[in-house]
This record gives sequence, structure tokens and C-alpha cells, in this order.
Amino acid sequence: MPTINAQRIPPRIPVGLVGVTGYTGMELTRILAGHPGLELVRATSRSEAGRTLAELYPYLSGPGDLGRMGALTVTQPDPADLASACQLVFLAVPHKTAQEIAAKLIALGVKVVDLSADFRLRDKATYEHWYATPHTEPSLLAEAVYGLPELYRAQMATARLIANPGCYPTSSILGLAPALESGLIHTDDIVIDAKSGTSGAGRKAGVGTLFCEVSDTFRAYNLTKHRHTPEIEQEVSLLAGAAPGKGIALSFNTHLLPISRGILSTIYTRLSKPMSLKDVHAVYAERYKDEPLVRVLPLGALPETRWVRGTMFCDIGLCVDERLGRLIILSAIDNLCRGASGQAVLGANLMLGLPETQGLPTAPLMP
Amino acid sequence: MPTINAQRIPPRIPVGLVGVTGYTGMELTRILAGHPGLELVRATSRSEAGRTLAELYPYLSGPGDLGRMGALTVTQPDPADLASACQLVFLAVPHKTAQEIAAKLIALGVKVVDLSADFRLRDKATYEHWYATPHTEPSLLAEAVYGLPELYRAQMATARLIANPGCYPTSSILGLAPALESGLIHTDDIVIDAKSGTSGAGRKAGVGTLFCEVSDTFRAYNLTKHRHTPEIEQEVSLLAGAAPGKGIALSFNTHLLPISRGILSTIYTRLSKPMSLKDVHAVYAERYKDEPLVRVLPLGALPETRWVRGTMFCDIGLCVDERLGRLIILSAIDNLCRGASGQAVLGANLMLGLPETQGLPTAPLMP
Amino acid sequence: MPTINAQRIPPRIPVGLVGVTGYTGMELTRILAGHPGLELVRATSRSEAGRTLAELYPYLSGPGDLGRMGALTVTQPDPADLASACQLVFLAVPHKTAQEIAAKLIALGVKVVDLSADFRLRDKATYEHWYATPHTEPSLLAEAVYGLPELYRAQMATARLIANPGCYPTSSILGLAPALESGLIHTDDIVIDAKSGTSGAGRKAGVGTLFCEVSDTFRAYNLTKHRHTPEIEQEVSLLAGAAPGKGIALSFNTHLLPISRGILSTIYTRLSKPMSLKDVHAVYAERYKDEPLVRVLPLGALPETRWVRGTMFCDIGLCVDERLGRLIILSAIDNLCRGASGQAVLGANLMLGLPETQGLPTAPLMP
Amino acid sequence: MPTINAQRIPPRIPVGLVGVTGYTGMELTRILAGHPGLELVRATSRSEAGRTLAELYPYLSGPGDLGRMGALTVTQPDPADLASACQLVFLAVPHKTAQEIAAKLIALGVKVVDLSADFRLRDKATYEHWYATPHTEPSLLAEAVYGLPELYRAQMATARLIANPGCYPTSSILGLAPALESGLIHTDDIVIDAKSGTSGAGRKAGVGTLFCEVSDTFRAYNLTKHRHTPEIEQEVSLLAGAAPGKGIALSFNTHLLPISRGILSTIYTRLSKPMSLKDVHAVYAERYKDEPLVRVLPLGALPETRWVRGTMFCDIGLCVDERLGRLIILSAIDNLCRGASGQAVLGANLMLGLPETQGLPTAPLMP
Repeated sequence: MPTINAQRIPPRIPVGLVGVTGYTGMELTRILAGHPGLELVRATSRSEAGRTLAELYPYLSGPGDLGRMGALTVTQPDPADLASACQLVFLAVPHKTAQEIAAKLIALGVKVVDLSADFRLRDKATYEHWYATPHTEPSLLAEAVYGLPELYRAQMATARLIANPGCYPTSSILGLAPALESGLIHTDDIVIDAKSGTSGAGRKAGVGTLFCEVSDTFRAYNLTKHRHTPEIEQEVSLLAGAAPGKGIALSFNTHLLPISRGILSTIYTRLSKPMSLKDVHAVYAERYKDEPLVRVLPLGALPETRWVRGTMFCDIGLCVDERLGRLIILSAIDNLCRGASGQAVLGANLMLGLPETQGLPTAPLMP
Repeated sequence: MPTINAQRIPPRIPVGLVGVTGYTGMELTRILAGHPGLELVRATSRSEAGRTLAELYPYLSGPGDLGRMGALTVTQPDPADLASACQLVFLAVPHKTAQEIAAKLIALGVKVVDLSADFRLRDKATYEHWYATPHTEPSLLAEAVYGLPELYRAQMATARLIANPGCYPTSSILGLAPALESGLIHTDDIVIDAKSGTSGAGRKAGVGTLFCEVSDTFRAYNLTKHRHTPEIEQEVSLLAGAAPGKGIALSFNTHLLPISRGILSTIYTRLSKPMSLKDVHAVYAERYKDEPLVRVLPLGALPETRWVRGTMFCDIGLCVDERLGRLIILSAIDNLCRGASGQAVLGANLMLGLPETQGLPTAPLMP
Repeated sequence: MPTINAQRIPPRIPVGLVGVTGYTGMELTRILAGHPGLELVRATSRSEAGRTLAELYPYLSGPGDLGRMGALTVTQPDPADLASACQLVFLAVPHKTAQEIAAKLIALGVKVVDLSADFRLRDKATYEHWYATPHTEPSLLAEAVYGLPELYRAQMATARLIANPGCYPTSSILGLAPALESGLIHTDDIVIDAKSGTSGAGRKAGVGTLFCEVSDTFRAYNLTKHRHTPEIEQEVSLLAGAAPGKGIALSFNTHLLPISRGILSTIYTRLSKPMSLKDVHAVYAERYKDEPLVRVLPLGALPETRWVRGTMFCDIGLCVDERLGRLIILSAIDNLCRGASGQAVLGANLMLGLPETQGLPTAPLMP
Repeated sequence: MPTINAQRIPPRIPVGLVGVTGYTGMELTRILAGHPGLELVRATSRSEAGRTLAELYPYLSGPGDLGRMGALTVTQPDPADLASACQLVFLAVPHKTAQEIAAKLIALGVKVVDLSADFRLRDKATYEHWYATPHTEPSLLAEAVYGLPELYRAQMATARLIANPGCYPTSSILGLAPALESGLIHTDDIVIDAKSGTSGAGRKAGVGTLFCEVSDTFRAYNLTKHRHTPEIEQEVSLLAGAAPGKGIALSFNTHLLPISRGILSTIYTRLSKPMSLKDVHAVYAERYKDEPLVRVLPLGALPETRWVRGTMFCDIGLCVDERLGRLIILSAIDNLCRGASGQAVLGANLMLGLPETQGLPTAPLMP
């Protein structure tokens, strides 16, 4: 996180943010406030244009860098203006809106990291089925790189357009990847029981996410119908080397936690042959041994969302139930940082030639 | 819940409570405070003997019934004294301790509802394996009735000793019963992903359940090793008519929610043949149509823990994933009321010839 | 709270509820669900008319009384229809709207308990100043009785219209009454630092009360400008016997707690002459000794909102700072029950000749 | 906060931490994990010696700096060993224990920042009265510098021993300083109503701070008796230029918030002469205009604990009640960062000749 006297070698690379008022925009602001290589020079919002960032986020004040950043005036989203000032733009707006702006920005030569779902699904028909709207930029869909560094690091570095992964998919895919790549599990019996903090529901006013409707309760939602299902299935099918048209179908189910941040996915699988926990753990440790942002916890340890709160880490815990021949994988991330804005900044770092993890938070706020 | 001027036709039946300071003892106190047919005449605690109930629970004060109840002095647990004053005693103490007291009380002619795990498992060896301690009362073990009214109502009415079900098992068994009784699902592919509020961890001082260690975080615990596993397997095997030695083995896994009360179990099963949600729902509705304390929610509705907060209800929601041939069952209870103390009072009602649901809370506190 | 087999001697008195969807409407529904003397026969909502209560509140289902209540269909608010069916109507709608409906209902011979602020301030000009809207029913304003039983029990019993007190005023006035009536404190140096749970902000969709904006934070709001200020000043001036035009002016300040229910007011006063805590406590104990719903806690004990959660009690704790000559009064209530809907039902009980505390919850849900 | 590739110019200055397991030790660890100028080379704990930091705090793992830090083995507290390795030691242990270790370390030539209360009160008798234990190091008491940079920056830079201010005093003193220095308020009518998150109660196992005892409730504690009272009175008396023996006596009262971090103090004062909010605001803005870590919020804005969560900022809001001639000051800090560990690191920075704010977090985690 930013410190007041963080040394910054000018010039930082100018970037823009379309959609500064939602939780992903808020989190991008937090991260960019401390980024030594990127400078936020445009922040847009249809509803808040004309106000300063400091008016939206009072912490962006005072005599130092935060205060300077807070003096930035929010503007209406204008591709030409963004292109005139920015080398790269983050899109933190709803799907459908995103694809329109992305196309204009890329036509103007600006790199784009899109945090919406618009460019995550490779198959246009699948997108149109799950999102119930036409996709108007099929060529960009074909070009976009899915921005999960553990799978697509090289492609991200040369991309013009990164489709930033969804929060649940980030957690699920990283949890399943080693098991699928190494053929440890049956691919036809995967159940993901995912639980997310409430910031995942966004910052829209709505009765359902009022404090008194979320606090001290717990519920499932969108069972069997969550839009992250095809995104997860697409990527895990590729990981498993599934033949075309024979992709993995899995049971993905979501719950709402009375916490602000954090996703914990409990993934139930069946081992394809008996294996000890130790051997499974070795496969996972090997797969992620060079990954700076995935931690395979020690044997027996299980992740908690607080250990990754506010950070880029994905913590993975493993459990083998020898009695049942099952492997249970637990995967914890911060849905706003690793699951959205932090991963977007990582993508930007790669696209802009900066060190991959530059400016990304790693020590959690505890308690 | 009690109201100040609740009319009470004397005499109420005198009952005792061994272990008044834990959360189940606290909840028993709350329920008994409003029960028209039962009167708490003994409350014991090794650590708090000599103090009044009002000193432990300040709300038990004032000029009315609550104040009279609050004047009761906590005593050391003494079977002879309990037997001299009570027709029935609730045991809200840890396992092992419970079986010793239960045996003495029953020998003295007192009925017992034991909230611990000591008499839930029919098989002595299974108990000794999972609880790592000898069971010294095998004949009582054989005699005890598992106190889930939807399965054992008739036996409960004539029991001397009720083994009050665990919180997770109550939720899981009620969720699975109709599907198993009607053969809707495969019995070899059941996964229960259960989440419980923190009161389930008890009221012992410990770093792990401090506010700052539970609030704003989420974690799994005891995966594949939770002691409620054999209890669930015992009952669901009976429901499925499993042959001796061929009992159901299922995957039961627990998580800690940052809420005080409530359990939501998400139960993943595989349909034994294709069925529509409507048809599955009809089976459930029929099974529970005469049950006053189980609500099969309308088609498409999913339970939330707040809808049962502080009450005796088990709310069940159903979801069929036709793409995968899966039935997902959601079952919500209040872990302290339906999952412990309220169910214990229901058992006492049956044993004492009172109306089954007398004195039991049914309207949730919301928000 | 309601129990399934609560015996009900027909006929209960039919009542209506205008505004069933907000938190006060929700709480009225909860209380009426268990009331042995009142039956909810009309529930209105402009936005939800046509749906059943069970659709709004899923717990109102099942085979028993709750299910019967849940079958009630929500209607548009229609004074003639309400008058045709109800002896008394609760108004749980915003101020201004309330006065219009109240006038029509009273003209039709129906008794009214108004939960809004429309009839609380005796002085029309004061109302119009603080609420920035004309008051169109001055004669009803003159007639309305302020529904705090500890001050106006007799007048409430014969009222046609009760102005149900605000939540903060209930807490503040009950905390200050004995000290002012007995002249213990200076009337020109009273500071009330009040903290309320978020349900006090209502159930409107708004960013400011989203879970992620309230959880894990704390803030003051409306300092020196809260509309409950004149209501408190009106009543405490009367209690102190202040001369006309010489009413008490006090500093009333509010904060938002990350809890659903509960108000704790910390009231800072200056003793008019040195007194021991014991002597102050005796004055309070004497004042409230016959009050069923106010508890002066034992010497040294301080109230907590959880001890009154979901109940009608006002718990009062006292602290004398002899070094500074100050009396600090702490007053805790449940803002929805004692501070709104429960107190409204108490008013209805009195108006309808039922026992004052009939059907009112008294045992808190803990934890 | 630390970022994986934070550039660190060796060598960093070696420091030690006595008491690594409490919340202040945990927070010091978090801050030091990202500090470019300090390196934690010793961490002690009587109960956890022999384990690695990574075992205590799982996030201290992985291939980078965090993992290297996590490899540090916790030791028994041994002054000689600490002195052999460290230029400065942080003491995060209870009072009484702290003074003993501090004396030994200073005798060995090591600089000390003591987070306990042992060296905060200048008057030995006052310490012994409030802490009910003898002070055995009176000469160090006389030498210690109170580590609030806004008051004692110069003295801190040359100190051997810094008494790190308490959390409540930090908030209260910074809130009152401008008003007292400029004589805006009466000094005999100050009431501080302070509210703190639960981490302020420490990490000891205890029933009173269990999740189920803190969540969804609110209470006052230690009224008129909190040990931070004399600390606040000492410093504000100096600020007001009070004559010896004529120090300010004020009413300081504390409440427990169901949040992990954050203090909000609402300070009620009486203006010594009528002033507009604008004029009061100007005095505050001027006083703190060069302070990097105090933000006087814009006219009308009030602080929230979340705006300072995890950071070093003290946010101050002002409210003038012209009707009553009162000035209400609101002061928000993070009790663990600004109120304890972060301020301790700032003190260390000054003592060691590093830039004052080096390594200190400034952007809050939101939501």
C-alpha cells in the first residue's frame, strides 16, 4: 500500500479508469494510489463527473501524494479524451457497456483491461446465451486474452485487450488447475461450493444488500444459474485437455457471506485413483512453486479469507478423504483485489512492461 | 417468547437444567422463561453456583415472571437434589460428563434430555472411535431415543432418555430424509457443505472464537473429521433402508460463519433418475405436510438463516440441475433453538405429555 | 413471541397495518403474529399490494397460525376499507403521509396509532420548522397523546390517536425522567450521545446503508440537526417543569452502529448538588418500581443492547463521577420494538382495553 | 503496505519486537513486512518461542520478502540477545513487564519504543495510583518522551526511550489540541465519548470478547475509571498551559464497538466565546497544515473509522452548535495503526534518522 514518502521515479505511465464509483473502481483507486509505475490521470463516472476524487474518497486528501491524486476531477467517459491522455484504460463498468468503450479505445490505440465479463467467453454464442445480449465485437472477443497470469502470462504481455477474470473463476480455476493438468480427478464429478463477501454484489443501492438484510444471516443465491459457470467450465476444460464439444460440466453454486471481502471456494472432487494427501500436495506445490501469488498452504492447513484480505494472494488448502476417495480443494482470495482490481493492475503491469507484481498489496490487514 | 402477562395455569411441571452458562444453557433459559407448562426449579453450574440467574442473565429481572425466574440460585450439580425437585432434567454439559449424570438421574427416576453426543450413536464402538473415550453406560445407549420428532415422535413420547440430536445432523437429516425414503438419489454420492454460526463453537474462552478472529473472515474446519459425521450416517442409512454393514458413507464438511446463530447446509446429491424440480418438490411437500416445524419453501425459493433465527423451524429449499442430473437440497435451522435447546424442550414436552410445540418460538427476529 | 399452539380465545380484535414492508411494519407483523388479543386483518403497501404476507415474509407459512396470517393479501391503503374491517390501525408510513391517513381514519371512527413523527410535537410551528412541511391537521395535533406509557398511561387509554414516540426520544426521555422530576441535575448542561443500530435508518434502498458501507465502520451523523431533538426537548422540559418559553435546550447527537437493532444513549449531566451513586440509584429505582418495562440495573451494572434485543425493556444504568460532579445515565432499548412497533402495540393494548403488556416480547434473543 | 518487488536498499536497520502474538505485535509485523528501512531480526514470545513467524501468520510465506520474514524463528525475550542484534526494540507487552525489559535494553545501549503505558505518565504517583503497581524505573520515566509527533517531534528524534501514546489518548489529544492551544473552549466542561473497535481489548482468550458476546451488541465499559484518563488529562493540561496543580479534569468514557479496528471520539466542549464553524475550522486547519498525518476534513464533513482503517491518519471533523454555544469535535483513528503500532514505527523512524513517515500505511482498505 502507498506510503507517504514512497519514492517515485518520474514519469509514471498515465492510465485511465472508466467507472470510478463502484467497488472495483474504488479498489483500483486504492491500488493505484500506491503504485510506483502507474499514474491515474483520468477517472470517469457518468453520475459523479465534475467532482474531485477527494470528494468521493475523503482519504485522498492531505499534503502528499494522496492529496494530489484526490485533486483529479472526475470526467464523463469520453474515448477520445481518454486516448489523448492514457496509455492504458481500465474498464470498471457493467458488461455490454464495456464492449462498446473497449472497441473505441482500442481503435484509438489504447490498451484496455476490461473488468467486465464481455471478453471472457471465447464462444460468442455462449456469451449471448448466458448474458442474454448480443456481442457486437466478435473480432475483439477472439483477440482478447484471459487475464489469469498463472495460465496466460506470456499472452497477456503482448495483448491489446485483457479480459480480466471473474472473482469466482479466479478462485475456482486456480484451485482446480493442478488436479486437472495432472489428471488427479474425475472430470465429471466436480462440485464447487463458493461463498463470497458482499462487495461482490457491487455498490448499487438495493434492499437485498442493505446491512440489515445481510448481517447475521446467510443464504445461497443463483444456484445452477450463476454467470460465472461457463467461464469456469471454459478454462477448466482447457486445463483438462477436453476434446472440443466434450468440455467439463460442473456444479457451481454461490452463497452470500456477511463479510465485505473474500471468497472461499470449497471444491469437491473424486480422485481418479487413490492418492495420499502428501502426494496430492506435492503436485500442487510443484505446479505453483514459481508463482509469486499462489500459496499452497502447508500440509493440513486450510485457508481463511482474512489471510488474503486486501491482497493478491490465492491461498490453497487440500484435504484428502481416503474413506471416500475424495479430494477437497479450498481456495481463498480477496474478491476485489485478486478477484478484480488487483488482477487488473497485474495485467496492466504485464501489458506495459512493468514488473508483474509492481504496486500490488501482499500483506493482509488483520484483524 | 415469553410475554409478561402470559397466563399460566399452575402447576407447571418442575424441570432442571445442568449446565446453565453455555450457549445451549442460555437458550434453554430463554425458552423456559416463556414456557407455559414447564418451570425451571434447578439450574446448575460448577463455576457459577451461588449466584442467581439474574446475575448471569440480567434480563431475568423486574417485577414479573422474568424477575421471579431470575431469583433462582444456581447450585452445584447434585443428582439427588435434582431428583428431589424435578420430573425432568436437561443436560447441557460436555459429552462424557453427561453420561455419568444421566445414569444417576435415570436411576433416581428422573427423565433426561441429554444435549450432548453421549447417547446419539447406537453403536458403542463407533462412539468410542469418534469421541476417543469409553462409553460406560451401554444399556442406556441401547435404550436412548434419538430426539428428532419427524423420525421418532412416538418413541420419544415414551422414552426415559432422549439423545438430543446435534445441530448439523438435524439440518442434514431433515434435508435428506424425503429423498432417501423415496429413493430419489444415489446414496454413494452425497456431499454436505455445512456452514454454522459461531455459537455452535460454544462459550468457552478461546482465541479462535474471539470477535476479531471470526468477524470479517470465513474458514472451513474439521474437514472429513467432524464428529457429527457418524451421527448423520447412522440416521440416513436407516432412512435409506441400508443393509447392516452397508451404511451410507457421505462427505460432511463444516465451515464457520461470522454470525451468531444459524446453520445452512447445502447438500449435493445425484438423482437416481431424471426428475423435474416440481416432482421432487411434491415428494418433499408430501413428506412434511403434517409436520408443524418443517417448511418446504415454495418452488424456487431458497432458505436463509434469518428466516428461522431464534425459532424451531427447519426451512428446506430445493434445486434441480437438469443439465447435471443433480438435486441440491438446502436446509436452514437455528443451531441453538432447533439444533439444540428448542428441540430438547420439544422432547421434554413429548416425554411429559404436553403438546409437542408448547412454548417453542416460531416467529424469527428480523432484521 | 408466538408459539404454535398459543391458545387464542376468539374473537381477537381486528386491526390494520398501513405500511407493512418497512422495518417497523416488519416488526409489527412479528409481534402481531404472537398477540393473543389482536388479529391483523388488513396490511397495506402501495408497492406490494396483491401479494400475500407469506410472499413478503416467508416465515408466515406452514400449517398453523403463522400460515393463516401469511395468507392475508396485501392491499392498497384505503381508509374506507380499513375502517370497515378494523377497530384500530397502525400507521407505519413516513411523516406527512401519516397525517393525511390518520385524519381520514379518525373521521371514520377508527382508532389510530401513528408511528411517524406527525403528531409528536405539540407546537405546530416547531413541527413545520423541523420537518419543513405544513401540518394540515392542527386539531388532531392538539388531541394526540404522546404514547410513552411511563408518562401518559392514563391519557393513552382514552385516546383516539396516539403519537408513538421516536426511538431515540424513548431512550433519552426514560433515561432523564427521574433525574429531572427530582431536580437532581442542572438542566442547562445535558449532552446525549446516542448510538443506533442500522434498522433505524429504514429499509429504503440506498448506498449509505449497504452492508459494505456500514459493516466494520462507525460514524456520527446529523449532529445538532437530528429531528428527534425537539421531541426530546419538549418532553424533558415538561418533566422538569420548565416555564413556558424557557424549555430545556440540550445537545443531542447521533451515531450509526454496525448492528441491526438497538440504541444505547450515553447521557452526560451535571449534578445540581453532590450525591452518591447509591442515592441517585434509589431515586431511579423508586421512580420505576411499578413499571413493568423499565429496569434500573443493579448498582454498578451498565446496560447492553443485547439484553433488550427484540424486547420491550428499557434498561438503565447509572454512573456518578464524584471527581467531576457528573451523573452519567445509560439507557438501552431495542429501537424497533420498544422504540417503535412494540410500543405501538402497547398503545393499542391500552386504547382497546387489553392488558398493557399483552403480546409483547420480553426475553431477548441471545446470543 | 508491502509489495512483492519493493526495492530495498541494503542494509536496513535491524530491529526487534518483544511480544509478537498480540494484536499490536501482529500489526507491527504487518507494517515491518513492508518497511523499506527497517528489518525485523528478532521476534519474541514466551508462549510461541521455537515456532517460525510463518507458523503464527500464514501470510508470511511464499518465495518473496514475506516468505523470508516468515522464516524468522520466534525466541524467548532475552535482553542480551536482543541488544546483540538490534538497534531498536519495540515492546508490545503488558505494562509492568515493559518497564523491566526497557531498563535492561537501554542499559545495553538499545533504543526502545514502549507500546505499554509504563512511561506515559510523568508523575510516578499518578502511575502508581491508576495502575496499582510500583514504578521501578523513575529515572527512565523522567527521560521518556511521549511519542505523539504533532506535539513532541523534536524530542522524539533524540530520545532513547519513547512512550508510545495510548490509542484513546492519541485520538482525544489530537482532537482537542488546536482548541486548547488557541483558548477556544472552556477547560472545565469537556466530555469525551469514545468508542473503540474490539482489537483494543487485546488478543487474550476471554468470554467477554468472544464473537457471540460482541457481535450485534453495544455497551459502555470502565466509565469514569479508564486508565487512559490521566494520560489525556496530563497532555491536554500542558496544551492549555494549565498551572501546576490546576490541571484539566475531564469526563472520559469508553464504549466497545462490534468492529475490529477503529476509534471514534466524540468530544463535547463549550466555546469560550461565540465562534462560527468557519472560524473554528480555520484554527484547526492552520494548526495542522504542515502535519502529514492529521487531516482536518472539509467544512461539514464528519470522519468515519473506515476512512482511516489500517492507516496512520487522524481525521478530524468539527461541528458548532450555535444554539448552545458548543463545539463538538470528532476524531477518528485506527486504534492499532495510528493508535499503537504505526505510531510506534513512526517513533522508531524518528529515533533512527529515517524519514518520519517511511513505511507507514496511508490508503485505507475499503470496503
